[in-house]
Amino acid sequence: MEFAEFIKTPMVNSVIMKRPFHDAVEGTLCVSGHHLILSSRKDQREELWLLHSAVDSVEKKLHGAGGTLVLKCKDFIFIQLEITNAEECISVANSIEQLSNIDDVTLAYPFFHRLQFEIMEDGWQAFQPEREFARFKECSEEWRLSSVNSDFQVCPSYPHAVIVPKCIDDEMIVRVAAFRQHGRFPVLSYYHRDSKAIMMRSSQPLTGQNGRRCKDDEKMINSVLGIGRKGYIVDTRAQSVAKMAQAKGGGYEPEAHYPQWRRIHQPVERKQAFHDSLIKMVEASSDATASMDKWLSKLESSNWLTHVKDILTCACVVAQCIDKEGASVLVHGSEGLDSTLQISSLAQLILDHDCRTVSGFEALIEREWLQAGHPFRSRCAKSAFAITKHRQESPVFLLFLDSVWQIWQQFPCSFEFNEDFLILLVQHAYSSPYGTFMCDCERERASHKLSKRTVSLWSYMNRPEILQQYLNPMYDPNPAVIWPSVAPQSLTLWSGLYLRSQVDIRPEQEAWSEIAKIREYDKELRSKVTKLRRQLASLEKEGLMAGVIVPSTEDGHDSSEH
Amino acid sequence: MEFAEFIKTPMVNSVIMKRPFHDAVEGTLCVSGHHLILSSRKDQREELWLLHSAVDSVEKKLHGAGGTLVLKCKDFIFIQLEITNAEECISVANSIEQLSNIDDVTLAYPFFHRLQFEIMEDGWQAFQPEREFARFKECSEEWRLSSVNSDFQVCPSYPHAVIVPKCIDDEMIVRVAAFRQHGRFPVLSYYHRDSKAIMMRSSQPLTGQNGRRCKDDEKMINSVLGIGRKGYIVDTRAQSVAKMAQAKGGGYEPEAHYPQWRRIHQPVERKQAFHDSLIKMVEASSDATASMDKWLSKLESSNWLTHVKDILTCACVVAQCIDKEGASVLVHGSEGLDSTLQISSLAQLILDHDCRTVSGFEALIEREWLQAGHPFRSRCAKSAFAITKHRQESPVFLLFLDSVWQIWQQFPCSFEFNEDFLILLVQHAYSSPYGTFMCDCERERASHKLSKRTVSLWSYMNRPEILQQYLNPMYDPNPAVIWPSVAPQSLTLWSGLYLRSQVDIRPEQEAWSEIAKIREYDKELRSKVTKLRRQLASLEKEGLMAGVIVPSTEDGHDSSEH
Repeated sequence: MEFAEFIKTPMVNSVIMKRPFHDAVEGTLCVSGHHLILSSRKDQREELWLLHSAVDSVEKKLHGAGGTLVLKCKDFIFIQLEITNAEECISVANSIEQLSNIDDVTLAYPFFHRLQFEIMEDGWQAFQPEREFARFKECSEEWRLSSVNSDFQVCPSYPHAVIVPKCIDDEMIVRVAAFRQHGRFPVLSYYHRDSKAIMMRSSQPLTGQNGRRCKDDEKMINSVLGIGRKGYIVDTRAQSVAKMAQAKGGGYEPEAHYPQWRRIHQPVERKQAFHDSLIKMVEASSDATASMDKWLSKLESSNWLTHVKDILTCACVVAQCIDKEGASVLVHGSEGLDSTLQISSLAQLILDHDCRTVSGFEALIEREWLQAGHPFRSRCAKSAFAITKHRQESPVFLLFLDSVWQIWQQFPCSFEFNEDFLILLVQHAYSSPYGTFMCDCERERASHKLSKRTVSLWSYMNRPEILQQYLNPMYDPNPAVIWPSVAPQSLTLWSGLYLRSQVDIRPEQEAWSEIAKIREYDKELRSKVTKLRRQLASLEKEGLMAGVIVPSTEDGHDSSEH
Repeated sequence: MEFAEFIKTPMVNSVIMKRPFHDAVEGTLCVSGHHLILSSRKDQREELWLLHSAVDSVEKKLHGAGGTLVLKCKDFIFIQLEITNAEECISVANSIEQLSNIDDVTLAYPFFHRLQFEIMEDGWQAFQPEREFARFKECSEEWRLSSVNSDFQVCPSYPHAVIVPKCIDDEMIVRVAAFRQHGRFPVLSYYHRDSKAIMMRSSQPLTGQNGRRCKDDEKMINSVLGIGRKGYIVDTRAQSVAKMAQAKGGGYEPEAHYPQWRRIHQPVERKQAFHDSLIKMVEASSDATASMDKWLSKLESSNWLTHVKDILTCACVVAQCIDKEGASVLVHGSEGLDSTLQISSLAQLILDHDCRTVSGFEALIEREWLQAGHPFRSRCAKSAFAITKHRQESPVFLLFLDSVWQIWQQFPCSFEFNEDFLILLVQHAYSSPYGTFMCDCERERASHKLSKRTVSLWSYMNRPEILQQYLNPMYDPNPAVIWPSVAPQSLTLWSGLYLRSQVDIRPEQEAWSEIAKIREYDKELRSKVTKLRRQLASLEKEGLMAGVIVPSTEDGHDSSEH
């Protein structure tokens, strides 16, 4: 195996593993090419089965003859390993460090993952643009699925098929793409049935300092609105930032050339700021000895919740334009790969109840994140603990999931999925045995043949026995638009995720399983009622035949259903 | 009626009432001696029925011909009234201001409250010391109920009966009382079955600067421990504060004279600091336009959560001494009326699962707050908005309930009651139609004959139709000691209470009612199963008699119970 050179010590005995809120376990530690495994002495049970790629940083402390390793995982879990021999301790640390930093995609675990289950529905096929286009059938008079990008030449970060205005042909699109950064021309992202308004997203126009124009771009964008109707361009940058972008060849849409559109600048921070913020927030969270003051000060100065607030505020502005004003919206920042996607996906979550179901949310992530070209590989290579090399890492997707969680906890009955579902998505975005979040865009995923050579996360998650752990027992479908509060008092730190190594969540989990248990018991009782009633009916029939007087039943009508 | 002089304008038409997250209502406003009533035009429905004593401050803004009143209630609810006539507006404001500030206890509403229900069990009798003493039967070899204070002469703030060591006679107690501030001699507060350790509480000893001693006090306290056993005196003041108290005649127990006891100083702030903190926290909470930064800064500098953390930490220290070390504890600060009670009651909530039931919690409030002489009238006269005159106001009890809420949300299945139960207690402590929280101590309550002339809050709350709204549908009795986390990351602002006018809690309430609904449905189904089974059995019997073949039933055993 290619990894052998990194594994000097494949096995260490008598290792003690400590995890917060778990009993310490002693066992044998094995370092394999992709996993770190700890089997306890007792019954050869695997107590730990951790992908190296899940480890963000390894800290080693030597003391006396032995040493301690602290593995800080990308999903904010801390694992402590006590190894009696210092040499073995160093050797294991080096292995994990090297194996968790392999850059070569082709060596990633999803290519080696042997499936333990049969695939019912292939997640790779479930949300293809051709299928998702059905969502837009109500506006299929004005919009069409274009294959202009089928070979990923027009826009390398776009999927093979995109939805564009029917009146704009593919040749025009090629010219529009040339006028937008990285070729990310405006595409349809959402159609709002209630108001018939739409949302598009793109990257910034390349107007530059000389105010370059592109008639096709203007035509394409203006074509979206009916005569006399107004639309909004929501720019996720401050006006000053958008102006400065002109110096580097970027820019924004001047109202003179897009007369039906009003520009709103609703700023959201850039990706480097997000990353710095995450590091500070997690550092504050890890300090259990802090005073109350120090904790709140540090949380504040991390700015994490400020980012969440900005993102949610911008998404609400977009949703308000669409729902309250019935106006169409074009969203973009600069590249259209990060904040733009946070906003376009959250706006849909607010507006469209379908996005709050499990499959609707998976579809949303496919459409607005994976197919839309959010560079998961670059952004999620490291989390809060590693020293990052490329400065491309940023918790953009994590901030989206955090914002979803904020809405989720404000509307706890309106989501089909539970908190663990969101945490699972965080984990898989950063490290996964499945291929879904690999690579930076569909073009790369296609070149590595991921849909053939790896399993989709959705194939795994949508199996009933897995999915049931991630369902919200309080779900009560709510077709309305839900307006989250963005008042600072309404936003709180997602402790179930970031504080998992500091705060004991077991009592809370117990509460959820209590609710789930009642629901389950409910079902059993209902089937019991049905069965008893059937027996009764059969007895009544026989009794009638035998001339027996049947006791009257008040439950003749079917009242056992909700 | 005595109030007539305060009511110049008893009725105003066309008043518009606005409350956060409620639709505006137009109606007729009536000012009665005790209530402010708004009846809507539509069906003469009462939309508001508010005790004047619930109002903490009245703000009036005149504009044009009319004006707006903002009533800030003691329970953090804001009510806005728009009155078209400025003169009437001023008149109503004056009435509310005067009527909400009547100092005379004998004019309080509980004396005038006409009961709408029949009392099943009198709350005044439910938790009398004589009955509560049954709780301590396991240690009744060493402890006895003393009537030394039956006429409230020995200690004016103690109840008529208290539990003291059996080996200490009443004459000695009188001498001990003389050595303790306000006569608050040590009394038994809790007996821990698991470790056989006990908790006592008292006020500070009056050692003064000359190191006064009291042999009886030493004997009384030392008698509690067996030979060679150690106890802890948990002083809720910093060592320096305790030292300073000597200058004013107070002090602490020097180890030389109490050799079996180790003193721990676990400081909790004093009552003025609590009050200032509440004002700042509520002011920060009301500012919905604040940025995230400003909100967290203000929350931090209010120190509210620091107080919660200090109180919980101190209670955990006491509980640890008792449970983990099996050591007895004496708790006191200076007067023993405020922090001492916070600590002694929270320690019991942690240690004793019975205190986490509805009746156990009511008993705890009776024993450790009402009978223990916490001066509710002085402390809860005003809340966060009024300008206070006496500087005796302090949210000591509120901080206790806040701390309970923190534990409650860390262990959501371990409490029989829900969050609304705690909020209801906050409301009634500050303003109530019931007599329970009136006056400062049992002596005053007796002199006003409250148990005859007013209704107990418990008489109201313990009626099944009322109580069911306050039950926790997730309750799963947990006999264990529960250890709350006091890490700053685990403590959050009680938004369900303080942010009720800022954050919409309706979706959360919906979630709770969803859970309650499922539980209710569960019960129905279970009774349906039982009924069907009974019908089936009866049919089987008749069928057998008539010679009919009975279909086999798998449900013969009683599996319909949880």
